[in-house]
Amino acid sequence: LKVFSLNSNEALADKIAAQIGTKLGKCTVTQFSDGEVQINIEESVRGSDVYVIQSTSAPVNQHIMELLIMIDALKRASAKSINIVMPYYGYARQDRKARAREPITAKLIADLIEKAGANRMITLDLHAPQIQGFFDIPIDHLQGVPILAEYFEKKNLEDVIVVSPDHGGVVRARKMADRLKAPIGIIDKRRPRPNVSEVMNIIGNIEGKTAILIDDLIDTAGTITLAANALIESGAKEVYACCTHPVLSGPAIERINNSKIKELVITDTIPLPEEKCIGKITELSVASLLSEAI
Amino acid sequence: LKVFSLNSNEALADKIAAQIGTKLGKCTVTQFSDGEVQINIEESVRGSDVYVIQSTSAPVNQHIMELLIMIDALKRASAKSINIVMPYYGYARQDRKARAREPITAKLIADLIEKAGANRMITLDLHAPQIQGFFDIPIDHLQGVPILAEYFEKKNLEDVIVVSPDHGGVVRARKMADRLKAPIGIIDKRRPRPNVSEVMNIIGNIEGKTAILIDDLIDTAGTITLAANALIESGAKEVYACCTHPVLSGPAIERINNSKIKELVITDTIPLPEEKCIGKITELSVASLLSEAI
Ligand SMILES: Nc1ncnc2c1ncn2[C@@H]1O[C@H](COP(=O)(O)O)[C@@H](O)[C@H]1O
Ligand SMILES: Nc1ncnc2c1ncn2[C@@H]1O[C@H](COP(=O)(O)O)[C@@H](O)[C@H]1O
Repeated sequence: LKVFSLNSNEALADKIAAQIGTKLGKCTVTQFSDGEVQINIEESVRGSDVYVIQSTSAPVNQHIMELLIMIDALKRASAKSINIVMPYYGYARQDRKARAREPITAKLIADLIEKAGANRMITLDLHAPQIQGFFDIPIDHLQGVPILAEYFEKKNLEDVIVVSPDHGGVVRARKMADRLKAPIGIIDKRRPRPNVSEVMNIIGNIEGKTAILIDDLIDTAGTITLAANALIESGAKEVYACCTHPVLSGPAIERINNSKIKELVITDTIPLPEEKCIGKITELSVASLLSEAI
Repeated sequence: LKVFSLNSNEALADKIAAQIGTKLGKCTVTQFSDGEVQINIEESVRGSDVYVIQSTSAPVNQHIMELLIMIDALKRASAKSINIVMPYYGYARQDRKARAREPITAKLIADLIEKAGANRMITLDLHAPQIQGFFDIPIDHLQGVPILAEYFEKKNLEDVIVVSPDHGGVVRARKMADRLKAPIGIIDKRRPRPNVSEVMNIIGNIEGKTAILIDDLIDTAGTITLAANALIESGAKEVYACCTHPVLSGPAIERINNSKIKELVITDTIPLPEEKCIGKITELSVASLLSEAI
């Protein structure tokens, strides 16, 4: 068994290797002068079961190409099996044709990974669980809810309600609520007429309660911060938020800072660059979860 | 017949469309906040023969993903055929295992393009013509030599010798020389002992002659500028250089500026950003060549 890390998430890869009790395989992933990816695998992989750790987080296209080229190199170096550990699966929101002539990039990525030569996929909290069906190779789909729930359990918060920021996330909120033995609420966004701003209607009784918002990913943080502020306005005592994948692009950090969110709990599927490590954010690790699946 | 341009080379795409007597298809290729490629094809392609123009020049991974996602979208929008016009084929130098455990990325790219759903490929001066065999779909492999040769013909230079900067480029130099009715020379680089710097030996009589160096691509311009200076030192009257693909990364422009090269002739397979448009460089267009192949 050999574990290699590409460039997206070395900190997590180090933790996973430590959990398994091994060292990361020697390989350098750099760029030629013109920006083309150059990979040197510096130890034999012939006959080995190889695990490659890579999140397709930003810069997403770079990270996808690193992964595909690594798979190609491993295949040609006679690895016995090539197993992809992808803590964050990028392009997952492009998982259906919502409008005419749209691509289904989440399926394309699955096809590309298989075509390159991967034999198995391990990933975490896909934006839609249906993406599992985009693969013909075995896929292990792990869940971050237990890790997030355990953290909040230990906090011993009183009078908790778990809130889904939209209708798409209710199943996830339900799972979290079961673990915390709490009720659930739902933010019911709705546009009364075209070109009229959205109304945030809250389903569930949140008066005086401690709300925990949960989502699979937080990108620009528009949804989650609007939801948090709506909860406070509607009488919630305080609002926590959590997600598995901290995409946190564009105005995300500023919005979170300026929002009524008391604490944002995330995991390390995507590394948080130093400039985004604000005091409100707590990072949990998915390293043991992933190493158990290896 | 519909022609679409992605983001790598809109100037060339405009010229190709004008040559064919059509307008570029309406489509926007942008990025979401997190850097994921977003493509909107804004007109029907159902039942059409579609041509997509994209060079996989820098940022290469971005441009490859744009292309693959576009192919996916066109396929799902029921295009009759998807034809890729790739003036510059990136990753072409990774076309064989030169060392153990190297990828063959040029083959990977071919596989990805086919898997995404392309039906035909039109490209120009592949770094190695063998890359044609990496495709199972029809591939048209065009050559830039006639365009470059025609330019030098019109200059009416006297006592010309066409010089290949290395042994790999002799066939190309031969073709150019035939057109210019000139002899050829070869730069014979060789390292006498390990860790001793290379010796530039020139095969052919260049004394008092006007040398034209030709290569398929110029990247960091190390090879070509050393060759030019060696030619002048060995008695050449003046040195021109030309190539099809102006990759021109890193120190290229500075090296060319400081070299003995009198004029560098390139084509527009890769657009030259304004800061690289130095006086020594002349750009020719491959638009008519490509539009004849469409
Ligand atoms: N990277 C992205 N950033 C923002 N929106 C996206 C991204 N990728 C896809 N989308 C859009 O998000 C929508 C899907 O999100 P959801 O409804 O949460 O499943 C689709 O309309 C997509 O066009
Ligand atoms: N983008 C690149 N920039 C510089 N060298 C490269 C690049 N891609 C591949 N190579 C190397 O260039 C060599 C092939 O170039 P050539 O001998 O001219 O065919 C191989 O050793 C590759 O490792």
